[in-house]
Amino acid sequence: MRNFKLTLSYDGTDFHGWQTQPNLRTVQQVLEDGLFSLTRERVRVSASGRTDTGVHAVGQVVNFRSDTRLSPETLLRGLNAHLREDVVVKEAAIVPDAFDANRDAKRKLYRYVIHDGAVPELFLRRYCHHSRYQLDAAAMARAADCLRGTHDFRCFETEWPNRASSVRTIMHLALNRMGDWIWLDVAADGFLYNMVRAIAGTLLNVGRGYWPESEVAAILQSGDRTRAGPTAPARGLFLMRVEYDPA
Amino acid sequence: MRNFKLTLSYDGTDFHGWQTQPNLRTVQQVLEDGLFSLTRERVRVSASGRTDTGVHAVGQVVNFRSDTRLSPETLLRGLNAHLREDVVVKEAAIVPDAFDANRDAKRKLYRYVIHDGAVPELFLRRYCHHSRYQLDAAAMARAADCLRGTHDFRCFETEWPNRASSVRTIMHLALNRMGDWIWLDVAADGFLYNMVRAIAGTLLNVGRGYWPESEVAAILQSGDRTRAGPTAPARGLFLMRVEYDPA
Repeated sequence: MRNFKLTLSYDGTDFHGWQTQPNLRTVQQVLEDGLFSLTRERVRVSASGRTDTGVHAVGQVVNFRSDTRLSPETLLRGLNAHLREDVVVKEAAIVPDAFDANRDAKRKLYRYVIHDGAVPELFLRRYCHHSRYQLDAAAMARAADCLRGTHDFRCFETEWPNRASSVRTIMHLALNRMGDWIWLDVAADGFLYNMVRAIAGTLLNVGRGYWPESEVAAILQSGDRTRAGPTAPARGLFLMRVEYDPA
Repeated sequence: MRNFKLTLSYDGTDFHGWQTQPNLRTVQQVLEDGLFSLTRERVRVSASGRTDTGVHAVGQVVNFRSDTRLSPETLLRGLNAHLREDVVVKEAAIVPDAFDANRDAKRKLYRYVIHDGAVPELFLRRYCHHSRYQLDAAAMARAADCLRGTHDFRCFETEWPNRASSVRTIMHLALNRMGDWIWLDVAADGFLYNMVRAIAGTLLNVGRGYWPESEVAAILQSGDRTRAGPTAPARGLFLMRVEYDPA
């Protein structure tokens, strides 16, 4: 039995998220169905983390164990031929037996994409949040400064109290504007449920002038989810990359 | 009664083309329904030309006559609030009563977008044709040279004989590559049914080395649709712009 690692992209629009649920189309389900049709094995695919309904992935990482004799390259081509066009396997490899995509993830990078042009970008509407307000990206970037480093992020957690700690470390955070586009990149050792979308929703309130920049630090201090902004729409969120220690 | 001109963008993926058909979702239908809900008038909207199922528009132009007292700006905002997100009104204006979006169109620009990377571009799959073959864009560009100017283009016409002439003038034609992307721009005084897609399908056969470059000129000479390449998929085609004489 070998341990396979796959890197996937998917368009979350028509998926009910990652995790298998009865009678709903999920990424895990279509992937496991694809593997069954290729290998005749019912394998269980484990992801670096779940993504919610409508959230996209550029570089989701998963692993599964299988007795198949197919090479990773054959598996990749076979899966891509079998899968519908909103999910693509970008890489396939054999990894050490101990590798676990979820447990071993050291760092994840999420990107939240916002468009604040007067007219929505028709052809990219599924892949960004359109703000009806013109946003002050510089103010958003300054307000976000306080989020870098190790903090208790429960104020940005949808389901608190969770089973474990709400303390996470944001190693990288950048907010940039180019033309009518703003993108927020956040890399951390782990993310709480809806954390990036809650941060985005909070920064959107700052960007449109509804809250002062200092509000973000105050919210973080308070540990109170009800003080933070709304969970921003799923369509703007991309899981960009998952990083592991070198094998 | 005033004559309104609208400039529209739409994502053709979920439309059965421009023209109203019973029980099918078309751009004309949703636009006329939107106008009815705003003005309580049943108006007839005339486009610069029909687009087929799956074909996109960046700058389709339409006109209609109405007794509404609404300003063009109010109409634009009201329509965009009413329409679903796959069609957007970009401009609205009052034009001279004689203006007709179809009859007065002097020049149209279509763009056909091809991607020939090894892995399909997931997030742009609705907006390009993915070629499984690596294409020789320089050969395609040279092969297309013979199409510029005034010719009988019946070899690229899906429904020949048509009611009128198959002679058209291509004023501008350019084929460019950037990275894995190739786009073909064609501006003409008018287009035959499926003309750009038939040209694209023909050039794709050249690009993948199935036909020599000289084949395109021979096909044009022959006037024989069965000699030209297949009609390339609708998803790669965009109506970019329609030009009129200054009022």
